[in-house]
Amino acid sequence: MSEPVRWGLLSTARINEAILQGARQSESTNVVAVASRDQGRADGYAREHGIDHAHGSYEALLADDDVEVVYNSLPNSLHVEWSIRALEAGKHVLCEKPMDRRVEVVERAFDTAEREGRLLMEAFMYRHHPQTHRAAQLVREGAIGELRQLRSLFSFTLADDADVRMLPELDGGALMDLGCYCISMQRLLAGEPELVFGRQRTSSTGVDAGFVALLDFGGGLFGEFHCGFDLPEGNGLEAIGSTGRLVVPDPVRCRDPHVEVDGERIDVEDIDRYFLQVENFGAAVRGEAEPLLGRADALGQVRVIEALYRSAASGAAVSL
Amino acid sequence: MSEPVRWGLLSTARINEAILQGARQSESTNVVAVASRDQGRADGYAREHGIDHAHGSYEALLADDDVEVVYNSLPNSLHVEWSIRALEAGKHVLCEKPMDRRVEVVERAFDTAEREGRLLMEAFMYRHHPQTHRAAQLVREGAIGELRQLRSLFSFTLADDADVRMLPELDGGALMDLGCYCISMQRLLAGEPELVFGRQRTSSTGVDAGFVALLDFGGGLFGEFHCGFDLPEGNGLEAIGSTGRLVVPDPVRCRDPHVEVDGERIDVEDIDRYFLQVENFGAAVRGEAEPLLGRADALGQVRVIEALYRSAASGAAVSL
Repeated sequence: MSEPVRWGLLSTARINEAILQGARQSESTNVVAVASRDQGRADGYAREHGIDHAHGSYEALLADDDVEVVYNSLPNSLHVEWSIRALEAGKHVLCEKPMDRRVEVVERAFDTAEREGRLLMEAFMYRHHPQTHRAAQLVREGAIGELRQLRSLFSFTLADDADVRMLPELDGGALMDLGCYCISMQRLLAGEPELVFGRQRTSSTGVDAGFVALLDFGGGLFGEFHCGFDLPEGNGLEAIGSTGRLVVPDPVRCRDPHVEVDGERIDVEDIDRYFLQVENFGAAVRGEAEPLLGRADALGQVRVIEALYRSAASGAAVSL
Repeated sequence: MSEPVRWGLLSTARINEAILQGARQSESTNVVAVASRDQGRADGYAREHGIDHAHGSYEALLADDDVEVVYNSLPNSLHVEWSIRALEAGKHVLCEKPMDRRVEVVERAFDTAEREGRLLMEAFMYRHHPQTHRAAQLVREGAIGELRQLRSLFSFTLADDADVRMLPELDGGALMDLGCYCISMQRLLAGEPELVFGRQRTSSTGVDAGFVALLDFGGGLFGEFHCGFDLPEGNGLEAIGSTGRLVVPDPVRCRDPHVEVDGERIDVEDIDRYFLQVENFGAAVRGEAEPLLGRADALGQVRVIEALYRSAASGAAVSL
């Protein structure tokens, strides 16, 4: 067996807890370092989580020779900048979703990864879960006939206007935080859309508190979704084909994992999706697996996000 | 009590059965005549249903002095033409939905009704059902907070390409037959949309076998729906507000009538919606009630339908 992969956490964001819990289950993953802009905060976090190195700046983490993989959980607007810095420091990077809202910037990140001979992956943890694989497999195998319509939603109430997801300067917004999952799921099942149309509900902070979208995948296959920080909790994915309907009731969080085909429940294994994500990326770093999500997927994501924001701004449909 | 209103059926379409069943429960409704382009067919239909007069042409029904109200269940493309003829013959007209796909034509029909001093109503039977009134009342009273998102679907599999709903020359299509309900429901809860965007899946016969739409009602209130003849059976309406979610599982057919607010079931009375429709229109004819649906509602409907077809044809959003 290969030596465990040594990870460093860029930031002390709350999402790290999920990654740490996944890492604890993985024999091939060691979280060895954490960074904060505040040394005291890094020290406290390292102590609390049993992490060896605590760095008082992001630069210091990148200079840590012990770190092989950087997990980038900074706010959206800092994803690409710090991923590029980490890649240039010789690290592999697992970067939280969404990587960015601008196509050109994501291309630059992957160009850097290729130039540096390092791996870069967008952290869509749900894509690693067996529930997701099973849903995609069922659709691919024709369980609902010819796929014709996708329908999803992702929403919850975020009342705190000071939350990073509500701040335009940090690239917050419902499409960035929630809609990106709806896009990812629909692309997984339907491929890349040819045309998109979107409308947004702007919050007092200036981000999209809500977003609704229509995607045309060509060949008579359509997608619709809505998301929002100003709505009650809502989750779900429906794939509707010529002969049947597949439902994934909890597609992102994967609680009580199962898929329903025409009302019939199909159970799937309950495995921690963060564990699967660090295992996959670690194996890829060791050359023992392909990263599940690479450049093509990340660019597909940001092309739709950028096009939807352009559509919402202009009032016109945008072709891709 | 007033004398029962005397109705004549323009055509022997299958939907007549529902109207006849509603009429049998109504003491104020007498179906006294039926017309077919074929005298033998009219005779057989009249005998089978206990109707006094059988006419071998639509013109003959309009000339029948005993008929006060014409129920127009002809194919879509003949709705306005024969409604206008009936109005000009001095009849009140209950015309099946959708009245037409062209705004100008529906305006002409209501102009005729006003000139002739007769009533014209579009036959959206579900609008008369207590389930619909209850849903609208709950939304209006704030049961889900501020309304922000509507989501509906209406679909079933129609495999017969010779069905009138599959023929472009009779103004068939999924938006006309099924989507019109989604539009009607969303307009009832949200008012008139300011902008719409739609895409269609064209059948081999040339009509839209499937349609997906996004409606922007202004003020951050959006609607999405899909419909199709090439999808499995699907029905449903969700109204999502700032604080809660209202679901009407069977909004058109109103079976097991109830509304759900945040998962809590609210039962409503089970009354035949066709009965309520003929009672309402009959009372309006006698001057004892207002018709539930008049010119403004029918024009709202056709404005959205026309705009959606224009959007699907052009690929652009259409402002109303």
